[in-house]
Amino acid sequence: MASRMIRVMATALAGLAMVAAATGPAFAEDGYRLWLRQQAPVPAPDRIAVTAPSPKLALARAELARALPATVASVTLARSDDPRVVHLRLPTRSLGDEGYLVRTVTLDGAATILVTGHSDRAILYGSFALLRHLATGGAASGIALSSTPRVKLRVLDHWDNLDGSVERGYAGASLWDWWTLPDFRDPRYTDYARANASIGINGTVLNNVNAKADSLTAPYIAKAATLADVFRPWGIKVYLSARFSAPIELGGLKTADPRDPAVAAWWRSKADEIYRAIPDFGGFLVKANSEGQPGPRDYNATHADGANMLARAVAPHGGVVMWRAFVYADTDPEDRAKQAYTEFRPLDGSFDDNVLVQVKNGPIDFQPREPFHPLFGAMPKTPLMPEFQITREYLGFATHLAYLGPLFTEVLDAQTGRRPDQTVADVIDGRADHHALSGMAGVANIGRDRDWSGSTFNQANWYAFGRLAWDPGLSARDIAREWALQTFDARAADTVVAMMMPSREAVVDYTGPLGLAHLMGTSAHYGPAPWVSDLQRPEWNPVYYHRADRQGIGFDRTASGSDAIAQYAPSLARRYADPQTTPLDELLWFHHLPWTYALSTGRTLWDEMVHRYDAGVAAVAVMAREWDTLKPVVDAERWQKTATFLQIQQREAQWWRDASLAYWMSINGLPLPVGVTPPAQDLAWFQARHVPYAPGNPG
Amino acid sequence: MASRMIRVMATALAGLAMVAAATGPAFAEDGYRLWLRQQAPVPAPDRIAVTAPSPKLALARAELARALPATVASVTLARSDDPRVVHLRLPTRSLGDEGYLVRTVTLDGAATILVTGHSDRAILYGSFALLRHLATGGAASGIALSSTPRVKLRVLDHWDNLDGSVERGYAGASLWDWWTLPDFRDPRYTDYARANASIGINGTVLNNVNAKADSLTAPYIAKAATLADVFRPWGIKVYLSARFSAPIELGGLKTADPRDPAVAAWWRSKADEIYRAIPDFGGFLVKANSEGQPGPRDYNATHADGANMLARAVAPHGGVVMWRAFVYADTDPEDRAKQAYTEFRPLDGSFDDNVLVQVKNGPIDFQPREPFHPLFGAMPKTPLMPEFQITREYLGFATHLAYLGPLFTEVLDAQTGRRPDQTVADVIDGRADHHALSGMAGVANIGRDRDWSGSTFNQANWYAFGRLAWDPGLSARDIAREWALQTFDARAADTVVAMMMPSREAVVDYTGPLGLAHLMGTSAHYGPAPWVSDLQRPEWNPVYYHRADRQGIGFDRTASGSDAIAQYAPSLARRYADPQTTPLDELLWFHHLPWTYALSTGRTLWDEMVHRYDAGVAAVAVMAREWDTLKPVVDAERWQKTATFLQIQQREAQWWRDASLAYWMSINGLPLPVGVTPPAQDLAWFQARHVPYAPGNPG
Repeated sequence: MASRMIRVMATALAGLAMVAAATGPAFAEDGYRLWLRQQAPVPAPDRIAVTAPSPKLALARAELARALPATVASVTLARSDDPRVVHLRLPTRSLGDEGYLVRTVTLDGAATILVTGHSDRAILYGSFALLRHLATGGAASGIALSSTPRVKLRVLDHWDNLDGSVERGYAGASLWDWWTLPDFRDPRYTDYARANASIGINGTVLNNVNAKADSLTAPYIAKAATLADVFRPWGIKVYLSARFSAPIELGGLKTADPRDPAVAAWWRSKADEIYRAIPDFGGFLVKANSEGQPGPRDYNATHADGANMLARAVAPHGGVVMWRAFVYADTDPEDRAKQAYTEFRPLDGSFDDNVLVQVKNGPIDFQPREPFHPLFGAMPKTPLMPEFQITREYLGFATHLAYLGPLFTEVLDAQTGRRPDQTVADVIDGRADHHALSGMAGVANIGRDRDWSGSTFNQANWYAFGRLAWDPGLSARDIAREWALQTFDARAADTVVAMMMPSREAVVDYTGPLGLAHLMGTSAHYGPAPWVSDLQRPEWNPVYYHRADRQGIGFDRTASGSDAIAQYAPSLARRYADPQTTPLDELLWFHHLPWTYALSTGRTLWDEMVHRYDAGVAAVAVMAREWDTLKPVVDAERWQKTATFLQIQQREAQWWRDASLAYWMSINGLPLPVGVTPPAQDLAWFQARHVPYAPGNPG
Repeated sequence: MASRMIRVMATALAGLAMVAAATGPAFAEDGYRLWLRQQAPVPAPDRIAVTAPSPKLALARAELARALPATVASVTLARSDDPRVVHLRLPTRSLGDEGYLVRTVTLDGAATILVTGHSDRAILYGSFALLRHLATGGAASGIALSSTPRVKLRVLDHWDNLDGSVERGYAGASLWDWWTLPDFRDPRYTDYARANASIGINGTVLNNVNAKADSLTAPYIAKAATLADVFRPWGIKVYLSARFSAPIELGGLKTADPRDPAVAAWWRSKADEIYRAIPDFGGFLVKANSEGQPGPRDYNATHADGANMLARAVAPHGGVVMWRAFVYADTDPEDRAKQAYTEFRPLDGSFDDNVLVQVKNGPIDFQPREPFHPLFGAMPKTPLMPEFQITREYLGFATHLAYLGPLFTEVLDAQTGRRPDQTVADVIDGRADHHALSGMAGVANIGRDRDWSGSTFNQANWYAFGRLAWDPGLSARDIAREWALQTFDARAADTVVAMMMPSREAVVDYTGPLGLAHLMGTSAHYGPAPWVSDLQRPEWNPVYYHRADRQGIGFDRTASGSDAIAQYAPSLARRYADPQTTPLDELLWFHHLPWTYALSTGRTLWDEMVHRYDAGVAAVAVMAREWDTLKPVVDAERWQKTATFLQIQQREAQWWRDASLAYWMSINGLPLPVGVTPPAQDLAWFQARHVPYAPGNPG
């Protein structure tokens, strides 16, 4: 007995010593471990039984061994068709391919926590769910968890370039080291896949939608294949962004016309080549006829022609095409917010079964707030895949704290008005229209920074996207709490959640309240520049969006203006037609109103704007104070980084507020409400301010 | 007694557990800790006494506490003027500002290891020296170490751009996150400074010699000042590369003519501004009239005019100017290898006292092998600061294994022939000519990759540069052994050294044996392209350098050719004038010879070339086999990365060899010697090969 105890102790010590020896002094806690920080006091693989070994179950077992608290004595991983599981008559019927069931049961006369599902992948998800349950305060006894993903393709879009830069990336260089691939398998690739699997993400588009044809050459296919090999055990498929003109650039053809048989044949052959290297290749993501990218419209073919041609190339292999609806023409005088709907709505019903149309959450471009995209609900015959931006191109990059859960759920929970009680989430899960496919895409905020996302709190946006892609019905607050409990000491969780929940609204307030949008600096998309009016294309200019003049401000999208509201369901269009029934948060998105317009808040429009700018700045100060209180319970390195970033955010929120107010006052000639602090500098000072070398803006 | 033991055990366990809890699972040993891996079983700060506390001594104490083996019971850190140290009458007189003395002594009746010197910085260096001594197998008893740096400015040049890219960087993005500076002090900045201090580096040029004027604006000065604050306790000064035309770009002047009083005044004012933010700012590094950079020659002023004007701006503050001699004109038909000497030699004696002329190790540009630069020894009135390239622009980037110690020492140990027994090292330490300044610069191979330098073995080149800058008389082998013992398990050291020592010669052999140079691919500087002849400037083309034709190969730099040999001391010039007395390794650098020329090796020139290409490829295979034997004693992650990189190197060495032979054969029409394997592909195949998106080649 004593010798056994000594052996156990010795093993524990050896384990600890090994870990200790491998640890550098400076990085006590550097954020690398994300939300997967729980660690078993002593790893005990013996507590986890696997009935039918497989690579995925070996991973699940290792995860449990690594993190299972001592309160759990036994876990059993078994497929639902295991005779002993069948015998238990558990409700596994509706789990699908990926759903899991985790339940305390008696097996062979002993209590165990059974993790089961119809596939090993499901059991891997169930194992992560069990660990999440335990790490977020769930009891170790009487466990009964079950969940099936509502969305099939839960995909990260990496805007990573082949030269290692990341468009709109604020977390360092691309995670993919194309130069040393396919030879070198950076252990970080595995950790990336593991983190994604832990939140249910099952696909990744490796390269930027602004794609180079090179990514479809044999050397780059081999590189992608290596990543696919690393990701496969974690249930993650690889996709590639495809450059529509690749048949010309790589194939030497004279055209990329999707109706040209030689073009279709080139793509079929290319798809065959890819599938030989990556048998479970997910398919293509395409940005066509958008911001200079080539596409079928170059040949007077439709987006459906283009998408279907590609879809037929991958269909024999089970692949899909994710075709972006983010289009606006440089020659089209129509309200930019209307153009995607105008172009795509008539195509409903003309896409092949393995095409998803990828629609940005709002009609413009990932602004801090936009109404949901009018295509949601308007193309019932087409699987629509929302595209969220996890990286914060327009919300302060990695340095500002903005939890996007509320932005995501605001869109997902929005009523489309197309069917009774139909939300955007109901549209995209595809069940109402019996779509075989469904999907949700998030533009990744991941890079080679040690903490993956450029800040600790940015990890929450990656986490929230994954959890919502699995279940678009989750609440942003619940997710925040889940994340906080796994990422910080439990004593920090309440305050962390309190900081997170209003944080995105703060950014809205200090950058563009009341439905204003697209007021940021040119190219870098950082800092205030509502005055910019000299860019080549009208819709690139902030003045195009706010339309402020001496009398008023806002974009009239009612029938008297661009009539964009007519793209929404009639009930919504009616509500948006009247400023009185339009939500305040979207007011100036839909209406041009006098500065003196009286709002339901009791303030004039101008006074309310000023009030909200100040509220945004004040909210950052509150966050900073809240974070200060956490110093005793958060490890020093992560605490300091967030504290510093909050200082930056405080200064820059003030910059946004001051510059914006100075500009609006130069337009409307109105005084500030009594007691409001004037901008610290004059307008010219703000206009002269230049912030060079912003990250995320390559080329 | 028992309770005390339990307390000790408990403390140890708590320490281990703390470390264990902070450790992620995937990165058992990721190379982050460099050569500073030794760790005390239980940190015991009580064993280290500090007589007069200061920030630097606190760092020294922490280093010792962290890493001191249990065999050392007591260390005392005390300045040489401490009465108790004075009393010991130790030989501290010649230590200078930075030299240290470490010796086992009796203080207050008890034995201790005294670390002393004339400054706290010296004691910090001494502490690292003590740890190095112990970590490399030195006895803990009877210690007697003493060393004074021979070179005053031991500087890393970072070719880091303000957009985060690194010119010729192969280890990820720039370490400096300009975007979050000056607010955020990444803990990695401290670790960088610490690693440098441990090998004696005392300066760092933050930005690329191809400089942007922005780096001299107030926001960027503030960012540099923050880095200077972080580095200062570690004895490291910050320098900036200065763009010569900044008075025009930032100051609105019409000229940057160094003789214009307004220009000089602008620089004085700029220097004053910098010194207000960074009181110990090191000074400027300048690349002028070189590869498109502006400079004094634009105004028909001399390099001395330019350097002195800048030197007078920083002189009141104690700053220096490091002025690069790397110039070659796009209009000058003179042998490129001669131009720096032609331009700078006449200026000897005309530089101000606080100017160092920074001279690349060889006359062209960091090739795998070049003869030493003829300026060394030829400008006795000017402190010459050699510039080595630690990053391997021409030696296989980070993926090939090439230990540069032998390259550095080959240059440092070279006899200049200018004075009896004078080596390049004797020139650069400045003592013979009584220069107040001396310096050595290395172009850094450091980036944000987790292992700092892109590979484990690349860390050795950083290490070797630092150690040689401290003492240019050290042997490359001793340094390799020192590094290996600190970086790996002691059982690996012999094999690691055996791999390192011939590794650079292998690269020479498979890329350009017998004095050939500059045969690499355009722009990327990767892979073989000896056939390139169509670039705009003659000296950009490989054919300019090898001059191969049907009859022979090599650059005639004797009197019958460019007469570059006349730039060397007469004794050397005589030796280089005759191919029989020219070292084989430099043969084709100085001579154009028939392919059939008979060498001392018993082979013809062509046969010897083929032999050496094959020897280079074979040497890589040997390294790979040697590394294989280390699998049991090297941690898995670092072992695997190096093993993979050696596979890449093997393949690419073969590529270099095959492509080069195919090309030479197309020129000389000669058969391969009997038994030699022909190239795997024909020349056209190699010429068509395209390697896009090479790292380190921004823009």
